[in-house]
Amino acid sequence: MGKERSEKEKVGGGGGGGGEHNKRNMFVSCVVMNSCAAELKLVLTALLVLCSIATLFQILPSRFTISASDLRFCISRITTTTTTTTTTTISPLNSTTTTIPLTPSPPSAQKDQVADNGVIKRVFNPYGSAAYNFITMGAYRDGHNTFAIIGLASKPLLLYSTPTYQCEWVPESSSASNSTFSTVSYRILPDWGYGRVYTVVVVNCTFSEAVNGENSGGKLFLEASTSGGGDKNRNITDRFEVLNESPGDLNMSLFSSKPKYDYLYCGSPLYGGLSPQRVREWIAYHVRLFGERSHFVIHDAGGVHEEVLEVLKPWLELGYITLQDIKEQERFDGYYHNQFMVVNDCLHRYKFMAKWMFFFDVDEYIYLPPKNTIKSVLDSLSDYTQFTFEQMPMSSKLCLSADYGRYYRKWGIEKLVYRDVKRGVRRDRKYAIQPRNVFATGVHMSQNFAGKTTYKTEGKIKYFHYHGTIAQRREPCRNLLNVTEINFEKVPYVLDTTMRDLAWSVKKFELKMIGPKLQNTRQ
Amino acid sequence: MGKERSEKEKVGGGGGGGGEHNKRNMFVSCVVMNSCAAELKLVLTALLVLCSIATLFQILPSRFTISASDLRFCISRITTTTTTTTTTTISPLNSTTTTIPLTPSPPSAQKDQVADNGVIKRVFNPYGSAAYNFITMGAYRDGHNTFAIIGLASKPLLLYSTPTYQCEWVPESSSASNSTFSTVSYRILPDWGYGRVYTVVVVNCTFSEAVNGENSGGKLFLEASTSGGGDKNRNITDRFEVLNESPGDLNMSLFSSKPKYDYLYCGSPLYGGLSPQRVREWIAYHVRLFGERSHFVIHDAGGVHEEVLEVLKPWLELGYITLQDIKEQERFDGYYHNQFMVVNDCLHRYKFMAKWMFFFDVDEYIYLPPKNTIKSVLDSLSDYTQFTFEQMPMSSKLCLSADYGRYYRKWGIEKLVYRDVKRGVRRDRKYAIQPRNVFATGVHMSQNFAGKTTYKTEGKIKYFHYHGTIAQRREPCRNLLNVTEINFEKVPYVLDTTMRDLAWSVKKFELKMIGPKLQNTRQ
Repeated sequence: MGKERSEKEKVGGGGGGGGEHNKRNMFVSCVVMNSCAAELKLVLTALLVLCSIATLFQILPSRFTISASDLRFCISRITTTTTTTTTTTISPLNSTTTTIPLTPSPPSAQKDQVADNGVIKRVFNPYGSAAYNFITMGAYRDGHNTFAIIGLASKPLLLYSTPTYQCEWVPESSSASNSTFSTVSYRILPDWGYGRVYTVVVVNCTFSEAVNGENSGGKLFLEASTSGGGDKNRNITDRFEVLNESPGDLNMSLFSSKPKYDYLYCGSPLYGGLSPQRVREWIAYHVRLFGERSHFVIHDAGGVHEEVLEVLKPWLELGYITLQDIKEQERFDGYYHNQFMVVNDCLHRYKFMAKWMFFFDVDEYIYLPPKNTIKSVLDSLSDYTQFTFEQMPMSSKLCLSADYGRYYRKWGIEKLVYRDVKRGVRRDRKYAIQPRNVFATGVHMSQNFAGKTTYKTEGKIKYFHYHGTIAQRREPCRNLLNVTEINFEKVPYVLDTTMRDLAWSVKKFELKMIGPKLQNTRQ
Repeated sequence: MGKERSEKEKVGGGGGGGGEHNKRNMFVSCVVMNSCAAELKLVLTALLVLCSIATLFQILPSRFTISASDLRFCISRITTTTTTTTTTTISPLNSTTTTIPLTPSPPSAQKDQVADNGVIKRVFNPYGSAAYNFITMGAYRDGHNTFAIIGLASKPLLLYSTPTYQCEWVPESSSASNSTFSTVSYRILPDWGYGRVYTVVVVNCTFSEAVNGENSGGKLFLEASTSGGGDKNRNITDRFEVLNESPGDLNMSLFSSKPKYDYLYCGSPLYGGLSPQRVREWIAYHVRLFGERSHFVIHDAGGVHEEVLEVLKPWLELGYITLQDIKEQERFDGYYHNQFMVVNDCLHRYKFMAKWMFFFDVDEYIYLPPKNTIKSVLDSLSDYTQFTFEQMPMSSKLCLSADYGRYYRKWGIEKLVYRDVKRGVRRDRKYAIQPRNVFATGVHMSQNFAGKTTYKTEGKIKYFHYHGTIAQRREPCRNLLNVTEINFEKVPYVLDTTMRDLAWSVKKFELKMIGPKLQNTRQ
């Protein structure tokens, strides 16, 4: 595969000016040397052609080589701050005199020096790059004057240094001078100290007044400064475009109008060999539960293979699902398929499109006790920005003897009927939020929001968790039992047919909505 | 302070070839258009001048701008592997088709795309650099065909990825083809899992045959590959010169001849407000102990301030000390002033210059019981590559009532006479090695050596440790006691005048060696 020189070399404004100056001198000497107009024309033509060639050199990818590529840092200058390209600025952090060059990687190694008093002054030569400073996933407008940028940053940078983030708004029709900077810029690290090479950052930028109020378009830039993280002598600032609003595109009424959906599901990254049948059951169950004014955002980190896509397709076509292909994030080594980044992207991307947002997994089933509807439950919790609800852990292999010979045709929620009732175990909870009041979110709860939170939801809402079933392509039933209570592998279980009793109505719902096309789905 | 464009832009050999081709076409058309020889000359002159200008453009730093610098990655190609400059090669790690550009930082952000089936393909745009891939401190020849490179590498790179290192030897008088690659290249991580942004790496490279055997000079390059550490799709290899042997410079007999010194001290980084008087005592004591065929390598990480330098100077002038200014390493955030890197640099730098190497601190005093000399002890341990010896912890504040009124004139080892005898406490040991058999070392022992190690040195050698005295500029004596045993702050102490009894002879030795010039040294 050919490697292309995809970054155009660029001689800065000043450098170009210097070249121009030289050319003029040359031109003057030509005039002195030759008075012949025809010759002058020729020289000018030659100049033009040569300049064109020289320019092409700077722009065209070089397709002539066959050997290893030689990448290096090149510094050129910019004289305007309204460029739309990425820039990196390096400034010394301390004000003491230093012999360290200001380029990240010096062209050739410095050498140790022996001072007059015999002291050996050792040099340390740094090379290359082991991690990016910042990786963007999404940038979203959160209001008239506020934005959120979701991405990854280097973990040791955040652990041992204090990188800073600032936003700059550059109007579309701007002269260089009228860009504005955010007055409040703070970062949220929502991933509870997890992370590996990279960790999740949500940058919140707020400007002192409305941005793009005239709807004439503009661009948001993020400036990410290392503050000496990788090199204490250098504050490296990377500046890059994160959001582009075209003229007329902005609809400020979005922030105050009724959201399109009542309930939106933000899924964690799906990966591995998921069972199409389990996914089929899950989506039919939850479309039925959440109803017409709901939407499901599914994040495919490699788990939505051909057969899983088949069971999602009917619901995709009905408009219930948005499928986000996030396989690219696997390039960046963070916690658990960059789960915390993904849920935060979902939060901000759909913040104004739903009244409530739910965060749970595809092996988990929300359950509302009899006489409750999703509307009645959420209306009763509308004073809260966030509520959490408890888990009902279900066995992934204990089934009923009564299903003998038929269990392979039954749904997971129908045949897995034994509930783990071990006491004294702290069990994860799941949660829902009203996203307009939330700045960042997590996997089991949000810790960055305005308003109140409650965990007193018993009797209103809970979830059944079929841990270990979703990536299982074999038949889950391993033990057929004929009891209402059992100790299995030192864990006490009781028979719980709550979900089993609902299965028939979910099947009926699916048939009504999408017909029989998924009837032959495999485990 | 003006920032300079210190990395020269470089159009690769292939690109240059293409340009040449274009110029020839131009030249041909000129010939067709003009048959006049004078005009042709003029055009050729213009060509030459313009080419020179174009070349200068690539080389000269641009000194014309005043604004922020715009740093960007530029990729050019190399067609030869014998260049002496730093190169970075990026290759895809997986062989699947990918739309990711091969530059570390794309020129402008990619955008999300919606596929035909409605799936949103999300992109993740990486920017900048948070940490270097590799930072060199030193590279040393370890034998006819083997080398060691000591430096720092990105900690998460080593923790979560498997970066690889390889050496390349490029003879001075080489054509492109006759460079050779090391057959065995392995990395040692000597710092026991410590490290922060950076961690210590010792790369050992061994070639299949003698390198630079003809003594005609050459260069050693290290190739450090990230193996996808910061970006799983990319294997970024930085190649840079680490060692340069000029023709005739190599003395192969060094590796087999008797070392210049019998005993060499490798000190850990000195930092903070050290007490000149304590340092004065320490160096006089140890020059006396180790004798004429000894040498002390002191590493100044900021601790050798003006007054400390004063007390070292007489010994520097006598040739007993080499002072290494390593303040620059503070730029790179590692464990404890990059202590592990510093001792490993010392090991390899002086590997063939000493029979034995000692690693301990400047608040520690080696002690040999009566009837032992340093020679007799080490001769008895010569079968061992390494031996460790035990600590005698001394109080940093308990003194003798007998010294009342005079203690401020007494030396630290003279007046601090109470030894901590608390049982059941694991105490650090210190160690010495025969460096020719050692590949990497630590602070309390080496774990990478050939041969045997022993800790059975009781009765032969031990060390007194005056913890908390070296960075203390106040008078250490706080409590004057007139007892042989005491429990102080819940710790049992006994009177131990071993070192006190030696003080007079150390003072006499100092006076003999350097005269009275340090008599007025302050605490």
